[in-house]
Amino acid sequence: MSFIPVAPGCHFPIQNLPYGIFSTASNNTPRVGVAIGDQICDLSQVSSYFTGPLLGGERAATIFNESSLNSFMSLGRPAWSEARSTLQRLLSANEGALRDNPLRNTAFVPMSEAAMYLPANIGDYTDFYSSKEHATNVGTMFRGPENALMPNWLHLPVGYHGRASSVVVSGTPIRRPNGQTRPDPDKPPVFGPCKLMDIELEMAYFIGPGNSQGDPIPVDKVDDHLFGMVLMNDWSARDIQKWEYVPLGPFLAKNLGTSISPWVVTMDALKPFICENPVQDPVPFPYLRHSDPFSFDINLEVGLKTASMSTPTNICKSNFKYLYWTIKQQIAHHTITGCNLRPGDLIASGTISGKTPDSYGSMLELSWKGTKPIQLENGETRKFLQDGDEVVISGYCKAHDHLVGFGECTGTILPAHN
Amino acid sequence: MSFIPVAPGCHFPIQNLPYGIFSTASNNTPRVGVAIGDQICDLSQVSSYFTGPLLGGERAATIFNESSLNSFMSLGRPAWSEARSTLQRLLSANEGALRDNPLRNTAFVPMSEAAMYLPANIGDYTDFYSSKEHATNVGTMFRGPENALMPNWLHLPVGYHGRASSVVVSGTPIRRPNGQTRPDPDKPPVFGPCKLMDIELEMAYFIGPGNSQGDPIPVDKVDDHLFGMVLMNDWSARDIQKWEYVPLGPFLAKNLGTSISPWVVTMDALKPFICENPVQDPVPFPYLRHSDPFSFDINLEVGLKTASMSTPTNICKSNFKYLYWTIKQQIAHHTITGCNLRPGDLIASGTISGKTPDSYGSMLELSWKGTKPIQLENGETRKFLQDGDEVVISGYCKAHDHLVGFGECTGTILPAHN
Ligand SMILES: [Ca+2]
Ligand SMILES: [Ca+2]
Ligand SMILES: [Mg+2]
Ligand SMILES: [Mg+2]
Ligand code: NI
Repeated sequence: MSFIPVAPGCHFPIQNLPYGIFSTASNNTPRVGVAIGDQICDLSQVSSYFTGPLLGGERAATIFNESSLNSFMSLGRPAWSEARSTLQRLLSANEGALRDNPLRNTAFVPMSEAAMYLPANIGDYTDFYSSKEHATNVGTMFRGPENALMPNWLHLPVGYHGRASSVVVSGTPIRRPNGQTRPDPDKPPVFGPCKLMDIELEMAYFIGPGNSQGDPIPVDKVDDHLFGMVLMNDWSARDIQKWEYVPLGPFLAKNLGTSISPWVVTMDALKPFICENPVQDPVPFPYLRHSDPFSFDINLEVGLKTASMSTPTNICKSNFKYLYWTIKQQIAHHTITGCNLRPGDLIASGTISGKTPDSYGSMLELSWKGTKPIQLENGETRKFLQDGDEVVISGYCKAHDHLVGFGECTGTILPAHN
Repeated sequence: MSFIPVAPGCHFPIQNLPYGIFSTASNNTPRVGVAIGDQICDLSQVSSYFTGPLLGGERAATIFNESSLNSFMSLGRPAWSEARSTLQRLLSANEGALRDNPLRNTAFVPMSEAAMYLPANIGDYTDFYSSKEHATNVGTMFRGPENALMPNWLHLPVGYHGRASSVVVSGTPIRRPNGQTRPDPDKPPVFGPCKLMDIELEMAYFIGPGNSQGDPIPVDKVDDHLFGMVLMNDWSARDIQKWEYVPLGPFLAKNLGTSISPWVVTMDALKPFICENPVQDPVPFPYLRHSDPFSFDINLEVGLKTASMSTPTNICKSNFKYLYWTIKQQIAHHTITGCNLRPGDLIASGTISGKTPDSYGSMLELSWKGTKPIQLENGETRKFLQDGDEVVISGYCKAHDHLVGFGECTGTILPAHN
């Protein structure tokens, strides 16, 4: 229990303590904060409570005054654990050091009064494709049920390099793109606004310490390199994607913007929600094998709110544990050819779809390529996104008496430029 | 003419003046230099000669003491032109300001004594696929001559996001990767060292000022965003690529390392070598149309030197002007959906192959998938790269009495880890 009140159902109890970058009207310099209840604890204000051995002296003051988490991420798990224990003690109801100190008046900022930023300078962003159900659904729609999964899919976690510059923080509006499409395969391509604007429900994780080029991260060492996780919406222009993606993969269909939630929930906070790995058949190559459970029971929801609605309609309930390939396998694979990861790199799961139609993580699947309109509570329907539509992704883990949550990842579609 | 001697055939006369990041034994702080003859002019030493209006006062001193060109790149063409005029005057044989100043003794460093670094912190790296001959050759080998070019190829410059962290400066050794391949399509995949290690002869350009997310760069404004060019070797693990690349494109086959030459030749230095654009049929969409010539006559060569050779054998002579899509079209396309470019972003041309077999820019094409071994001068042959092989890419433009060159982009293959 913290001396900061945490309402029932709040995503940010003392068991969570996610990190983010924020600023306020009175101090517009972005800096490091931790979410607790509906408040942000300003770590640049309380850095003197970090007494080491790893984060003592000037180190905490320097790192928590930075405008990104990259330096903190680069320190590694022992420093992260030290910071977490310090914060859990400092924010505890039993501890007077901050609770009874006048500093308390400036050390906390209401979330509602803060502006949030990207948590890190993202050097590279990778997107995997690790939900078997999603890959099967998309493959079925485009190539038929016999050829749904590509031959490589069960042997390796398929992924591709995304566009780091286009990753934005939750709340940033997304402009509908113009681009080339070929709606009729017997006619020439056409140019104009995207007509099949879609979402992808994903989660993504930030890399801590990196690896040297040429030296892969073994699957049983991945834990040392994993800082924490966020929610992601990988906005996708399906009609542009379909025309452009052969043979080198998605490009413009994905680089128009990718949204992430602002609070990075640490792997330490997620450990209690580890659950069994999916059964993998065929058994993967040794470099992809790990016996410890490393899937996570994280409930995920997608809400859609059109311009004429006041609250979103839930259109999808999914769970991170539905993924086929684990994070450990993704990172072991990503680095097996020697690719170097760096602190602050962002790696996404791929669209997370479950077995039932209400758990599909994209409108492409939810509306089955537009053949089954999605019913909204106010009577409207959607196949794909229209201008003014807002998408709200949320996610949380459930313990017996609290949640460990991610807050929300939101974005609204602006009309295309003409 | 410069007061610094420039030997005949030297790539770096006063008409060139490419920028790079270097350090020396006596001062190991990376800083900005300009190549002239076989010397580097240390701009951090001569910054006081930059008197403005755009680069005056502290600005030149700050920017030329940085360890990357990103700040300089972000300033834009008027500042770049000012720097170029200042340097052409300062280094001229007729100008005594530096020539007769004792500062001359410390302002120049022999290239042979300098260490070179990546010219910029590369936020994002994109690789296009803009040689029709290369795309046709690869397509013919993999899908037969009827389906060689994909239907989209003549309508848009196909490209994909690469791995920024893996870009290294010329001279960095490249480790042969381990990875999954499926040599026999009727058997399961296997794991082990790449057997089809290849090169790709490319050129790449650095972005100057960027654009805001959602706001494309129009084709006729691209010039304002283009800083300069380098040579590139996009090392490629063909067997890994073939197994992994469906449906999301090349991933691990390309992120093991991509080499670039250290000296960035500015667009101002390349302007005299602009030549006619290739004829494009069909006529592209308006957003890809420009009437001004923007192809470049840049001679490109690839040398291969095995461990038992003392000088490389030339295995390819190509030219940048063989490309089908221009840089202006590539950037207009890259941003048409709203993708934001940032100063220091690196964008590559794709493998540059010409019409004749001696102009093919990859060993895959030169050896026609391994069916025609490449003959080397010492009697050895190669289908793909072996451990210890060094690849040397060079490139230059030819004027009546001088060259404007790029120097070299080199790399040697190290054996795979086991
Ligand atoms: Ca995705
Ligand atoms: Ca390439
Ligand atoms: Mg995206
Ligand atoms: Mg590469
Ligand atoms: Ni990148």
